[in-house]
Amino acid sequence: VFVVDWDPGDAEKGGYDHFMMKEMMEQPKAMRDAITGRCAEAGAFFSGLHLDEEMMKHINRIQIVACGTAFHAGMVGKYYFEKFARISVEMEPASEYRYKNPIVDKNTLLIVISQSGETADTLAAIRLAKDKGAWVLAITNVVGSSIARESHDVIYTNAGPEIAVASTKAYVTQVGCMLLLASYLGQLNEKLGKKDAVRVCNGLAKTPELIEMVLDTQEKIRKFADANHEIHDLFYMGRGLDYYTCLEGSLKLKEISYIHSEAFAAGELKHGPIALIEDGTIVVAVCTQEHVFEKMLSNIKEVKARGAYVLAIVQESHEEIGSEVDEVWVIPKMDDDITPIPTVVYLQLMAYYLAVARECDVDKPKNLAKSVTVE
Amino acid sequence: VFVVDWDPGDAEKGGYDHFMMKEMMEQPKAMRDAITGRCAEAGAFFSGLHLDEEMMKHINRIQIVACGTAFHAGMVGKYYFEKFARISVEMEPASEYRYKNPIVDKNTLLIVISQSGETADTLAAIRLAKDKGAWVLAITNVVGSSIARESHDVIYTNAGPEIAVASTKAYVTQVGCMLLLASYLGQLNEKLGKKDAVRVCNGLAKTPELIEMVLDTQEKIRKFADANHEIHDLFYMGRGLDYYTCLEGSLKLKEISYIHSEAFAAGELKHGPIALIEDGTIVVAVCTQEHVFEKMLSNIKEVKARGAYVLAIVQESHEEIGSEVDEVWVIPKMDDDITPIPTVVYLQLMAYYLAVARECDVDKPKNLAKSVTVE
Repeated sequence: VFVVDWDPGDAEKGGYDHFMMKEMMEQPKAMRDAITGRCAEAGAFFSGLHLDEEMMKHINRIQIVACGTAFHAGMVGKYYFEKFARISVEMEPASEYRYKNPIVDKNTLLIVISQSGETADTLAAIRLAKDKGAWVLAITNVVGSSIARESHDVIYTNAGPEIAVASTKAYVTQVGCMLLLASYLGQLNEKLGKKDAVRVCNGLAKTPELIEMVLDTQEKIRKFADANHEIHDLFYMGRGLDYYTCLEGSLKLKEISYIHSEAFAAGELKHGPIALIEDGTIVVAVCTQEHVFEKMLSNIKEVKARGAYVLAIVQESHEEIGSEVDEVWVIPKMDDDITPIPTVVYLQLMAYYLAVARECDVDKPKNLAKSVTVE
Repeated sequence: VFVVDWDPGDAEKGGYDHFMMKEMMEQPKAMRDAITGRCAEAGAFFSGLHLDEEMMKHINRIQIVACGTAFHAGMVGKYYFEKFARISVEMEPASEYRYKNPIVDKNTLLIVISQSGETADTLAAIRLAKDKGAWVLAITNVVGSSIARESHDVIYTNAGPEIAVASTKAYVTQVGCMLLLASYLGQLNEKLGKKDAVRVCNGLAKTPELIEMVLDTQEKIRKFADANHEIHDLFYMGRGLDYYTCLEGSLKLKEISYIHSEAFAAGELKHGPIALIEDGTIVVAVCTQEHVFEKMLSNIKEVKARGAYVLAIVQESHEEIGSEVDEVWVIPKMDDDITPIPTVVYLQLMAYYLAVARECDVDKPKNLAKSVTVE
């Protein structure tokens, strides 16, 4: 177990208007703390983890269970596990998993994710799976939380205290930990070579700086928000990893701005959702994945043909997309697997500035609690 | 292969204002045709299917791939497979599956669902999986379609020609076929006893009559639509099977009425989406599953506390919910596993009458095609 000392003074706004802004600004440090001590020369490792090569030989089923924002980090994790460890992963919201007689036995690895470590449904899922013999690994931000105590293994995200209801730095560190863990399991599994394992660590090492670069573009995002804060609906679309980033961006916007936003797997657009696109509807097209970039371009053309205002987020190498869309936000050129981390920061800032422009209570959105400790 | 002769005269509206209405009214017959010849004394069976006990011994992975409405039928199917055959199922939209290097080998069973049998992404997924050695079973409505021809096994839904863009009778027959197939695999697998297998068949045999009963309530639904057609947003919530029915109901509404609707797993509500509930927001709470009925009651109280207008859909045995909500629509008391079939008919009719009240082109919604045969 990794012990983090939190300074109570950390829990102040540090000169920012809102805890959410303070916490978004802390993301470079949070990522650094999440990675530190977990990247060796041969790739990711976790000291103190009981889950080792021997245990992994008996694991024939991986399940990820979480709620809300943590669920989206889980979806990114599923993608990483399947890519790097070539293990298929079942993913379920905790509130569904616990009531469905899940298929679990002593060869099951249950991975749970919870910022607070106190999420009631997630805790119930742990107890259910433990009763059936599963090995439980928790990814949480709070040392000594109920979920940390009741799990067999714990990976702390080390994001520091998060006060704003809308999770930001906890999310990026959860994604970082999932990537490290997938890479670690891929090495145990011998599905991920040393070269690729090192590539993952190198990519992660750059994320604090990549996040800084996105944070530096705030003025542009504030202007976008000021110009568009009267919208009623907003759509996000993406493919692969970008789709999960869209889901998280959409949840962020819902939570704090009360704009009805929704995220779609871009390939599903023509199977129904595109009917909602009207003249001027904003569509955020996240296109950071090289292998589906051309497919995203087609989807963009489809929504443009229906009058959408398209804001595209792309890697620098695809800045030429500007001629096809209404606005482009750029992240530096990087490994495709790393993009969810800097990209989501754009979507966090967009949600933040739209909420501020709409005069919403950013840190304490109506109807929401920081952690859902009752059912 | 089961051959169905379609009379070209079937393709007229038969006195109804829209094909969609005609096709909703045909659902009892469609269900009957989907079940006929597939229920024996000992439970479900499919004559002519190559997938048998011997082959199932080698299958260690089941994947379901589909798009749009068929994807929702797949989600219901996943639930059935896990419950009856105790096999976990991976579920992916075809447009995601085909671009993600899925984990597939010769011990994989890929189940695809497509009304038209021509869906481009689904066809591409089949080719990819076949190249890696998977056994492909298609559930489709169109005899001799590309997907039927390229799959190793085919189950026809026998729904008859579907003309309206918004799928209705194809969906209920897809769900019926998934239930039969799950029950059949559960028997091959020896996870489902004869008594339960017979129970499934008996339940399915009642669905034509159950659908009739819902269709008979049209006047009530038309009144609801006339009173509420000016809404901008609508939310659905449910748990377990009801959640999937909500997803399909929401897609139906989007497609033909252009109302921005969204479906939530009710347990996820407090993790963000509840922020969107305002005074008067309509929330459709689907509560047909006995084991989570009390949990749904809590969720209903939460949204009521935020001012929502709650329309609950329940089994007859829970009509007392009327004291907690604003409006109740009832289905007869039945086996919980059967409820998705009559329940979705309520949601189809709601989408239909809302679209009519909004003067939308029900059969040919803007921006949508009947089958998506290009990417």
